[in-house]
Amino acid sequence: MLGHIILSATLALMPGAAAGATLQARRGQLPYLDPSLSPSERAADLLGRMTWEERVGQLGGIRRTMSRVNGQPSFNRTGFEEIRETQNGNIGLGPQFNYAEDVLPVVNQLRDEQINNTRLGIPYITIADSVNGIWVSGGTLFPGTITMSCSWNLDLFGRVIAAIRDENLALGITWVLSPEVDIARDPRNGRNNEMYGEDVYLTSEYGIRYIKTMQEKDEHGFVKIATTIKHFVYGQGSGGVNRASMAGGINHIMNDLGIPYVKAIKEADPLSLMVSYSSIDGIPMSFNKYMVQDVLRGIMGFKGLVMSDANSVEYLYTESKVASSREDAAIKALRTGLNHELSPAGAGFFTTLIDAIDDGEIAGLINESVRAILEIKFATGVFDKPLPSVEGMKKTLRNERHLEINRNMTRESIVLLQNDGLLPLDRSTTGKVAVIGVYADMINAGMYAACNATDPAYGDSLRRSLEKALGEENVLYEPGVTSYLPNNDTSGIEPAVAAAKEAGLAVVVLGSGWGTFDPATFNNERTDGEGYAHADLGFPGLQQELLDAVLDAGLPTVLVMNGGQVFVLNESTRRSGAIIHAFLSGEFTGDALVEILFGDVNPSGKLTMSMPEANGQFPVAYDYLASDDAGGFGPANLYDWHWPRGSRYVPMRFGFGLSYTTFQIAPPTVDVGPKNVSVTVAVQNTGNMDGKEVVQLYYRPDYSIIEFPVMRLIRFQKVEASAGESKEVTLTVPYEELGYYVNGKWHSQGGNYTFWVGNSSRDEDLQRLNVTLAS
Amino acid sequence: MLGHIILSATLALMPGAAAGATLQARRGQLPYLDPSLSPSERAADLLGRMTWEERVGQLGGIRRTMSRVNGQPSFNRTGFEEIRETQNGNIGLGPQFNYAEDVLPVVNQLRDEQINNTRLGIPYITIADSVNGIWVSGGTLFPGTITMSCSWNLDLFGRVIAAIRDENLALGITWVLSPEVDIARDPRNGRNNEMYGEDVYLTSEYGIRYIKTMQEKDEHGFVKIATTIKHFVYGQGSGGVNRASMAGGINHIMNDLGIPYVKAIKEADPLSLMVSYSSIDGIPMSFNKYMVQDVLRGIMGFKGLVMSDANSVEYLYTESKVASSREDAAIKALRTGLNHELSPAGAGFFTTLIDAIDDGEIAGLINESVRAILEIKFATGVFDKPLPSVEGMKKTLRNERHLEINRNMTRESIVLLQNDGLLPLDRSTTGKVAVIGVYADMINAGMYAACNATDPAYGDSLRRSLEKALGEENVLYEPGVTSYLPNNDTSGIEPAVAAAKEAGLAVVVLGSGWGTFDPATFNNERTDGEGYAHADLGFPGLQQELLDAVLDAGLPTVLVMNGGQVFVLNESTRRSGAIIHAFLSGEFTGDALVEILFGDVNPSGKLTMSMPEANGQFPVAYDYLASDDAGGFGPANLYDWHWPRGSRYVPMRFGFGLSYTTFQIAPPTVDVGPKNVSVTVAVQNTGNMDGKEVVQLYYRPDYSIIEFPVMRLIRFQKVEASAGESKEVTLTVPYEELGYYVNGKWHSQGGNYTFWVGNSSRDEDLQRLNVTLAS
Repeated sequence: MLGHIILSATLALMPGAAAGATLQARRGQLPYLDPSLSPSERAADLLGRMTWEERVGQLGGIRRTMSRVNGQPSFNRTGFEEIRETQNGNIGLGPQFNYAEDVLPVVNQLRDEQINNTRLGIPYITIADSVNGIWVSGGTLFPGTITMSCSWNLDLFGRVIAAIRDENLALGITWVLSPEVDIARDPRNGRNNEMYGEDVYLTSEYGIRYIKTMQEKDEHGFVKIATTIKHFVYGQGSGGVNRASMAGGINHIMNDLGIPYVKAIKEADPLSLMVSYSSIDGIPMSFNKYMVQDVLRGIMGFKGLVMSDANSVEYLYTESKVASSREDAAIKALRTGLNHELSPAGAGFFTTLIDAIDDGEIAGLINESVRAILEIKFATGVFDKPLPSVEGMKKTLRNERHLEINRNMTRESIVLLQNDGLLPLDRSTTGKVAVIGVYADMINAGMYAACNATDPAYGDSLRRSLEKALGEENVLYEPGVTSYLPNNDTSGIEPAVAAAKEAGLAVVVLGSGWGTFDPATFNNERTDGEGYAHADLGFPGLQQELLDAVLDAGLPTVLVMNGGQVFVLNESTRRSGAIIHAFLSGEFTGDALVEILFGDVNPSGKLTMSMPEANGQFPVAYDYLASDDAGGFGPANLYDWHWPRGSRYVPMRFGFGLSYTTFQIAPPTVDVGPKNVSVTVAVQNTGNMDGKEVVQLYYRPDYSIIEFPVMRLIRFQKVEASAGESKEVTLTVPYEELGYYVNGKWHSQGGNYTFWVGNSSRDEDLQRLNVTLAS
Repeated sequence: MLGHIILSATLALMPGAAAGATLQARRGQLPYLDPSLSPSERAADLLGRMTWEERVGQLGGIRRTMSRVNGQPSFNRTGFEEIRETQNGNIGLGPQFNYAEDVLPVVNQLRDEQINNTRLGIPYITIADSVNGIWVSGGTLFPGTITMSCSWNLDLFGRVIAAIRDENLALGITWVLSPEVDIARDPRNGRNNEMYGEDVYLTSEYGIRYIKTMQEKDEHGFVKIATTIKHFVYGQGSGGVNRASMAGGINHIMNDLGIPYVKAIKEADPLSLMVSYSSIDGIPMSFNKYMVQDVLRGIMGFKGLVMSDANSVEYLYTESKVASSREDAAIKALRTGLNHELSPAGAGFFTTLIDAIDDGEIAGLINESVRAILEIKFATGVFDKPLPSVEGMKKTLRNERHLEINRNMTRESIVLLQNDGLLPLDRSTTGKVAVIGVYADMINAGMYAACNATDPAYGDSLRRSLEKALGEENVLYEPGVTSYLPNNDTSGIEPAVAAAKEAGLAVVVLGSGWGTFDPATFNNERTDGEGYAHADLGFPGLQQELLDAVLDAGLPTVLVMNGGQVFVLNESTRRSGAIIHAFLSGEFTGDALVEILFGDVNPSGKLTMSMPEANGQFPVAYDYLASDDAGGFGPANLYDWHWPRGSRYVPMRFGFGLSYTTFQIAPPTVDVGPKNVSVTVAVQNTGNMDGKEVVQLYYRPDYSIIEFPVMRLIRFQKVEASAGESKEVTLTVPYEELGYYVNGKWHSQGGNYTFWVGNSSRDEDLQRLNVTLAS
């Protein structure tokens, strides 16, 4: 494929090769090249040998090394060199439009040049986004983060992350820009698909598993891949807008957004952290010394490297206007505690720091930052490990084990939300099926996924999977509305209804998101992802009209939702016989949906974001404060205009998801020990099909010194039980975990508590327990 | 009318009359009865004579003295006495369902008993809500607060408040629970109608005018009516819910919500303040020592009395669960700095403080609180002034001067938002008019208004005013949809369309709000007001279907919106030839609309709340932070799914409103003085009709130490100009006003500023000025 690459300049060796060659010859004589020394010893040695230009160069890098022009990968040597001159700490493989096999040879050559043609031979470290897999095409396309969170299966998640880690390593990537432990508290936010949902405990568990798996050490003691916990802090910005401000005080920040950071830092030690675009109370995070020094370094005890978000140092000057110049922005960010500037577009602001090195304080801060970056490089072995080979990469990417893990994750992540008995379908009696909607014929992979349905190598759309299962002649596909973009072309609705009538059964797939391989239109045609805020939570375009028309026909209809967000389901939509949310399920979306439609797989996913019932009904997360659901008068007959209505209850709520079998949770027993409280339940599969259930334990103190939510998740366990089988589950919680932050201090107390155990956060799905704990 | 009052027990004199009589005889001997002494001297004297029971009794009162049963006023002596025993500081005339002439004799007798039959003869002080006028029926029904704010006419507003003051005084009310200087930052909030809109400067100006007018001193030096600035602080609660939490830090609270408090306290000295139901960062205001002591008393310098909101002390225990008992809640509120418990339902929590008087600290705080209440009583003359007479009341309420002021306020408050030339109508060529919608046939007065269209004494509905103007035979009234409550009865839509076709011209009135005189259904039938959160910002019920059907007929159509909120106007709605927002315009709504429809009055109202274009497009206030409108990718073709779209621009925006004439604002001149900056413009009426225009001056510093909004209003002036006339307007701003709070300290700086002057906050309506101010 290399022949296809458009090279703006040759990949000829750069001047200075001799220096590099000499350097290699001296390996063993220079302490920083000695792998028997610790990363910090090696960093200290190397730092002392570096010029100020070399030091400042480490503070930035080039994340989008290549581009894609006219459908082909392209490398612009001139543009690359212009930036490399002053920003040479890291390199990236992006953007996502190119294939790994096209990118790796180019990047390997650039890596080689950096090692061999520079004075000290300091290699790039390769940084990549890693949400659904590798961030170039050609890898296994796993489900999106919000999707995987719905599996409530941490072990399976760990296997997915190990596969993603190994595919990244095969490309020489040793630093990823994940996990994103932001809390999805605003359903409008277009980045909710990158998060683990609305709950701090669940998010913490996934985040810790991600970090531990990625940062596992290899046989040489190198950290396999350094992680970047992000975006500190984010999740409830004004208007659901990507870079928007937050007005939170310290209690809100710690309890509603900060807990995953605290837990991950304590239990998994992420090597780096990215600050968010947010401002907190008027002070952008890249300039928020209180948040970075007092809260992150102080209260949370974070010891790793702190990086900006892309261009967030620039925005101090151009957008927030709290810096008076480029130089001022760079110095303010450095003083705030930022060590690294992530992938600026063009010249990074940190490059201007070279003009300030005569200032002892600035010089000290630069040294501290360079040392932090070098330590990650040494820790992950980039000075020591050979460059990855294309052959090795090909053996790793999309290997059978990864594909099988991927299938299983998709199967466990899809959520069944409504079923009047229509599902599962009986294969033996199902004749034709009408498959309706453009989302039925694509892989909707997510904003930070590499690829889409334009390349059938990445699995099958529902249409194709059904054609495989039933034969092409039995699948009547109609897109219905030609596109989700605004247009008034309803001409496809009538054929869609006709197909439904002909088949006698309709599967309508509606969604939001998408994207193409064409960088010029990638963002233009999307309706979800970073940069989008859903001021309307319905289905984009004319999709609702299409669904309404099919439902008006009165035939058995399954609605499948596809997209990394929640949707408002209006009365018309709820007429559907069955409703499934597939979120962003990766390359096996179609296959897993077919398995679920026909009952080969029993759905076991549970929502991790509550679904509002009106466009303005939020925050809707289950762990609201009692006062946030108070103050309404009169009866509850008009929720749109009279909300709250006695409770912020929404039926499709956090923790909720249906199965084809039924589970009964027996009355729990409680064991109140001196340090722990344990809740034990027997979970019986009382139906006729094997299945999986998620036992969920929630709690609240009955009295607290600041407001505590009406309930919070504190433990969960996914259990498998065959038809008729009963399993016992014990969930144990140390007292010290039952608490909350007050002014940055964890407060945990004895006294009266309420616990709830059940299979969702809905009142009717929970059994209540009153427990008194010793002080 | 007294004959109609249902008395549960006789109004016979209470035992103890002799004591009171003796007391009156001693007038002049007791210092606290000596009007020549200062309020604080008198309070100190009286406090020393009071038992602990008498002291604690002052901390509460009875706000809803009477009730309404079967359409008649009712007084329950037994229930009254039960509460009076321990809560006897104040009395109220509420609820709003009764008429002043029925209430005053009862309340006068209760006042008389309290003066003459108690040991020390401490009179009640009479407290009342006062939003659109007096809070019992029978007074002048002024527009709601949000409506009046749209006049941008402070002098006219001052005359309205003087009239409201005098009508209150005529009932013996000397303490009102206004002004509400909360900021309407969430369009879902059902209390926005009680506010002055989304801007802190405009709200400050109205709030100061309200307080100065109410607290004007009479010829004896008594404060006419004490004011209560409220709700400290409120305006952006979670979900737009009435009692909901806020997560704001100190910069957000001071700059986005607190400025009206700072200015009002400094410039107008309100005698009391009510805390909000909100919690700030997890700590309810009734228990938020930091906010009450450090911010309110410290930073803001407030010296007056602090009261709870209704039941907010109770909610510490029952809802927020930050108090462990009734007693604990009372003590926590007292320690926080609350001096008075507003109108609990039933027994107040502060009555439990009697059990804690042995604690020296508690006793001291009780004394401090009682002293604060007594000082307001002495300051407002309740110990000295005679009780009001029914005759005097009748002369004051609804007198001609008040009605004329009211008419003028309504005329200046109504906002014309869209006009394709349909308006003004030509009286000579207008034949029949179809008037459509239930809101066309009622007075929609507001949640804290006393009355509604069930009593035609309170002015005319648009239907009735049009009938007066055109003759009944020319007004074809059709309600269309029978009610805004949810029902599927669309049978009235066809007759409405038929009427429109017959007339050839339709005026459709859609709204939200309403209420009846029946306390049992008052809240049930409402769709706006306290306790409501609009998760949908469309028109309640089937009103949109009605409008769509009329517009589909393709006839000239005027849409009039009626209600104390903003609505989302969809594409269909915007087909209307003209769109008017009348908000809650009081008893002259109908008359003023007729005057505007026919051009007798040239509309001059300007929006004080921006109108979102989608149900989830908020915050939408014009003074957002740049980062809150950033982070979008790609083109702006899909605002619902792709918001922001380059700018948070909405066309119907703060400061916007049309006129029948045109105004041209000449290029401004700027005078940069040593302490002030002045902007001078010539405003020319370039059309053919006399009219009024509001010149608005906005600004921002080009660099700030925390984020500053994209612009903020700093001065405005409403000017009247006859056709062709030009008026010069100079707006002068002291440098020290150009600033913002950082950690509670006002920060004002020199440097580069941008000013904008024009007739709305929309880019196309503004001229930009770059000004450098000396440091």
